[in-house]
Parts: sequence; structure tokens; C-alpha cells
Amino acid sequence: MTGPFAFQIHSTDGNARSSTLRTPHGPVEMPAFAPVGTAANVKTLEPRDLSELNTSLLLANTYHLYLRPGHDLIERLGGLHSFMGWDGPILTDSGGYQVFSLAHRRSLDADGVTFRSHIDGSTHRFTPERVIEIEERLGADIAMVLDECADPLDAVYLAQALSRTHAWAERCRAAHSRPDQALFGIVQGGIYPELRAESARILTGLDFAGYAIGGLAVGETKEQMYATLDATCGHLPVDRPRYLMGVGAPEDILESVARGVDLFDCVLPTRIARNGTLLTLTGRFNIRNARFAEDSRPIQEECACYTCRTFSRAYLRHLFISGEISGLRLATIHNLHFMQRLMAQIRTEIGRGTFASFRAGFLQGYRITDQRVRHEQRRRRAEALPAAS
Amino acid sequence: MTGPFAFQIHSTDGNARSSTLRTPHGPVEMPAFAPVGTAANVKTLEPRDLSELNTSLLLANTYHLYLRPGHDLIERLGGLHSFMGWDGPILTDSGGYQVFSLAHRRSLDADGVTFRSHIDGSTHRFTPERVIEIEERLGADIAMVLDECADPLDAVYLAQALSRTHAWAERCRAAHSRPDQALFGIVQGGIYPELRAESARILTGLDFAGYAIGGLAVGETKEQMYATLDATCGHLPVDRPRYLMGVGAPEDILESVARGVDLFDCVLPTRIARNGTLLTLTGRFNIRNARFAEDSRPIQEECACYTCRTFSRAYLRHLFISGEISGLRLATIHNLHFMQRLMAQIRTEIGRGTFASFRAGFLQGYRITDQRVRHEQRRRRAEALPAAS
Repeated sequence: MTGPFAFQIHSTDGNARSSTLRTPHGPVEMPAFAPVGTAANVKTLEPRDLSELNTSLLLANTYHLYLRPGHDLIERLGGLHSFMGWDGPILTDSGGYQVFSLAHRRSLDADGVTFRSHIDGSTHRFTPERVIEIEERLGADIAMVLDECADPLDAVYLAQALSRTHAWAERCRAAHSRPDQALFGIVQGGIYPELRAESARILTGLDFAGYAIGGLAVGETKEQMYATLDATCGHLPVDRPRYLMGVGAPEDILESVARGVDLFDCVLPTRIARNGTLLTLTGRFNIRNARFAEDSRPIQEECACYTCRTFSRAYLRHLFISGEISGLRLATIHNLHFMQRLMAQIRTEIGRGTFASFRAGFLQGYRITDQRVRHEQRRRRAEALPAAS
Repeated sequence: MTGPFAFQIHSTDGNARSSTLRTPHGPVEMPAFAPVGTAANVKTLEPRDLSELNTSLLLANTYHLYLRPGHDLIERLGGLHSFMGWDGPILTDSGGYQVFSLAHRRSLDADGVTFRSHIDGSTHRFTPERVIEIEERLGADIAMVLDECADPLDAVYLAQALSRTHAWAERCRAAHSRPDQALFGIVQGGIYPELRAESARILTGLDFAGYAIGGLAVGETKEQMYATLDATCGHLPVDRPRYLMGVGAPEDILESVARGVDLFDCVLPTRIARNGTLLTLTGRFNIRNARFAEDSRPIQEECACYTCRTFSRAYLRHLFISGEISGLRLATIHNLHFMQRLMAQIRTEIGRGTFASFRAGFLQGYRITDQRVRHEQRRRRAEALPAAS
């Protein structure tokens, strides 16, 4: 791939790849993790913080920005980069995930989806053409096609949804016109290898600038998710970036990189931070716990983030217990630093050909405790809340 | 005054003074404004932000820190500076203001005051000796004596309260022992010139390192406040800093500096920021107002703060309307930058002998709109809420 979105693979190590995706707002070194800035803001942080945290790519949510403050307003103010003061690469999702999570507040037909706003109940309609228009006006570097994110375990429904997703992908491809914006297709098909293979084949035929793997981390087990990646990545073109949407637990990132994924986004590190849950090399812990009341150590001894360089666990716990906003921010800084350091390490290890042993070593020391997060994801789907970062 | 708390006046201009107060954690250039870090944190900000905002002195609340996380814990973690990651000067109040605002949850006697925690209802007792012990363990550079902040308009009660305040000041003076901590006395007496003069005379006799003027900005009119300063400052020693507690509106600071005050603290700039109210050279406005929805200008064109350098009013309004925490922080940064720039300008103008014309020019352009704040102060007192930043 050449032009403003040139994609170059530097090294491979097994199925893992280290690469660079160029964009009009700078390069994205991959494997990369994109923090989520739902409302054109990564909650509690500023652009200067994101730069300090070595963030290359941000995700912003089309559904949320379309409703508030509106894509027209953002366009009039110079587009998303200018509006939010972030001059680096941005990716917008299509809003499909949020709209489909509205459950009883949306109705689907072959042409598109009609839904009611979670903010004021007003009625809106997304079609493939409309979503592309909104994303082009927002002006991110990377836009996503409108797809349907269905229950990954419901084979019968998935087969129907898949035809619609493919038809919409083709319409999005036809409608898309901004040369300074890359459009990525989204492979669906739940946990079923034959559906994933078909979806990958059809989307590859549409020649997208990159391919996302959608519909995962929404209720299936980790084993099912990893098996689905095994069954999907081999059907995607080697010379395009691969993006696993909505995944951000460190163990899932390592397993996905090993299977050939280049890009991730997730609210997890930032959302759990605001609940006081901190990421470390040995797993997560919650800073509210009474055992940290007099703990003079930083969150993690070897961490170079501002939070760890400056404050004790005891102080951070005090901020959370006292309801101080600064605590949410300091925890967010730490968790994003942890993620970006992990991604940098992954890139280095791939370059050295030592990714497999790094992954094994990391996972041996890291206690996986994300059952609650999975549970939370299920609960949110059941309650039809639109996802926010 | 010599030693670790040497106070040097550089220039006078009318009754206004520019000066430096040295402390073990660095100099405080005065006239100075101290932001309030109630719970060992200026809400939404970090020490690095406060440094960037040219903050020299912070205030922390003894009442709040005594209750949570506790002064013993803070002492064991190395004292307040180390605990909160702020290596600059800190002042702690005595907790008196908060305790007396508890109204029906406290009972007063000659020896001290017994009160119930606003957090868990537990019973506590402050005496002059106890407060000094707590403040010494917190370890701020400047500690305040325990005083009684009574209704500034109730002459009969004030006269009784004043004897108690003076007896407590003497006991605080006797109990205080940390050589690396300055102790300031607090002049009370409401709006009554003869009570203020008597209070100043008695406290001056106790030879404090500095003198605060307490019990103002709690219900009296601006004219009464200014007249009280006129009646008080002349009775205070020229060679000690003068500190007007709880005052922070720009117009009040200018009027008070003109009357000889050197130091201020107030939650106003930070609290109104979290409500979306922004300080400018022409007065305050609230960023939530619909007229800013598409306003591409910064809060103030000539402002050099990070917020104004980076974001439009439209974006800030979007953050507030969307309930994004970042909005509270960006507004706080702007308001504190405004205050610190104002204080720096005041110091410069005094040095040049042009303070009077600067003050007149500033006040001519600045629309005063703090009725609502005064109303809020009255409401909080009536509801007996402990004040927080």
C-alpha cells in the first residue's frame, strides 16, 4: 500500500508483525493500542498528556459525537483534530456498535437502522451512506464501515446479519470519497470459522485500506475469542493492517498479537482506572483497598509514569476514598502508561524475534482477573446502554 | 524578621506592599494568592500543574486532613509536603472555620470545641493545644491559631467570642514548638473597628510571625469588608505579613492590597471553575451558555494558559455539557492562571508605583458579579456544611 496511508511491515515473529501505518497526521507504530476518547476527549486527560504517554492513535465515537455536539458543528470548527486539540492520528468507529447496543430503542431494516438517542430520546437514522458522510465530516484519519455487531454465539442470526453487513460494507466503500481518510472494513461472523472466512473473503474483495475484526469480546470466552482469531487472520491480506475492535486486556492483546493482530482499542484501561483499578506486571489491584492505607510505595516500583514518580499508594487511596477527581486522572495516566509501555515492548520483542518468550514470561507473572469486566460487558449489553469510555 | 521566615518588603505604593516571605520550602512573593487544597489536593490538579501556574503557596485544611486520612498517617508518610508531592510552601488553617460552620454539630466551651465529623458522625475535640499538635504533625510551613469565626454583624456575641479567641491564641503560641513552622495569629472582631483594633493590639503583643484577618467574606457587604480592612491594617505591625483569609474575588483582592494586605486564599477560582464559570479581564461568564456553542475563540484572547492556548470555547462548552471531567480541570487551570497572573501584575505595579492606576483600570473593565457567590456562602453557613474547595 502506498500513498498517505502506506503500510509497512518491519518484522514478523511467528504470526506477530511489527509495522508502521502512515496517516496524514503522523505514523502509527504497530502493534498499537488506541485509547478511547468517546466524546472527543479521553476522560480526565488532555492532548499533552496523551503525547507524554506516547499515544499514537486515538479512537473517537461517531455515535456520541453525532448526537453531541454534532458532526456539522465539529466540521465547522475545523474537524475533529482541531476541535479536540489533538494533531495526531484519529480513528472513528461507525456508531454501529452503540446503535445495536440500544436494543429496544432501534429498528433495523435492509437499508439501515433507526434509533432513539440515549440523551434525549429523539429519533435518528444511520444508513451506510449517512455514516460515511458523518465520518467524513468528522475528518478522522481512519473511518470504519457501518456493520452489525450481533451475538457472537447465535449462528442462525449471524448468517443473516452477515449478508447485511457485507452489503453495507460495499455501500460504505462506494460512498466514501475523502482521499485523506482511510476506510477499514469489518469482518464479522461471531465465533464461527466458516462465517469469519466468508466475511474475510468478501471484504477483502472490496479492497479496504485495513480490516477490523468485529463482534468479539462481547460475551464469548477467551478461548473462543482466540480460536476465532486463529480462524480469521489467515484469511486477511498480509499487506493491510488488522484491527481487533474493543479489546484491551493485556493478556488478550498478547494472545491477539501472536495471532497476527496489529491494532487495538478499548475503554478498559481508562474505565477501570476511574474505578481505582490499576494495571501492574503482576495483575490488577484496586487502590481503594484498606491494605494500601499506609503503603508508601508507588503503584509499581519500576514504572516511570508521572503518578508512580510522584505519589504513594497511600496518597492515591486517600484521593479515591475522599472522592477527589485527581485520583481518577492519576490512575488513568498510570494505566495508559502501562498499556503504551506494553505495546512498545511488544514491538521491540517482535523486532528481536523474541516475542514468544516475552509473551510467555509476561503471562506467567500476570494474574488474569477480568471476569468482572466480561460480566460488566454482558450486563451493559443486557441493559442496552450505549458503551462509553 | 530574620531566620527561616524572613519577611522583606521591597516596595510600597500607598498602603500596598510588595514583599517576600521566606519559608523552609521556598519564598512566597507577595501579594500572593494561595489556592486551596482541601484534602491535600487542589481539586483536578497536580503539583506539576501548580508549578506551571506559578503557584508559590498552597492552603490545606486541617479539619479535613485530621478526619481523613488523619494527621498521624500523614506524619508517618513524611508529612504533608511528601504526602501530596508538593515541595513548595504550604499553609494549614486551624480547622476552626470548618468546626464553627458545623453549627448544631458542635459545642463550645472555654477550653475548646467538641464536634461531630461530617463524614461519619464520630465525636472529636479541638483545643488550642490539640490543633497545634495536629498542625505540627502535618508539617506545613505556616500554621494558624485556633480562633472562633463568629457572625461579623453580631456585636454582642463577637465581644464574648473575641476574649476566647485571644485566650486561645495565647495558648496556641505557648504550645507551638516547631522552629521550621511559622505560626500566624488571627485578628477577629467582625465589622466593628474598636473590636478589630483591640484584637490587633492583643495579638500583636503575642508577637506572631504573621497576622491574619479572619471573619470576613462571610456575610457582610463589600463596603463593610473594605471599611474593616481600613480599620484593621493600621493596627498591625508593618514588618509582618498580613493575610486576609477566605478572600479571592479579583475586585476584593485589589481593594485589599490597596489597604495593605499581602496574602489571600480562597476556593472561589477553583470552585466556580468546576461550575463552568470562567474569570476574564471583563468579568466572569459561564461556559455552559448556549451562545458559546460555536465560539471558536479561546476563553480570553490574550491569555497564555494551556486551556486558552489549546481549546475553543465551543470545545470547553461541549466538555461541560457532556459531563466530561476534563472540562472541570481545564476551567480550573484557566481560573488559577488568571489569579496568578493578576497577582504577578499587582506585584509589578506596586514595584513601579503605579498600583493605584492599575487597580482603577482593572476595576473599570471588570464587571463584578459575585452576588451569587456571597449568597452561596450564606447558604453554606445556614446549612452548616463544612467548607471544601
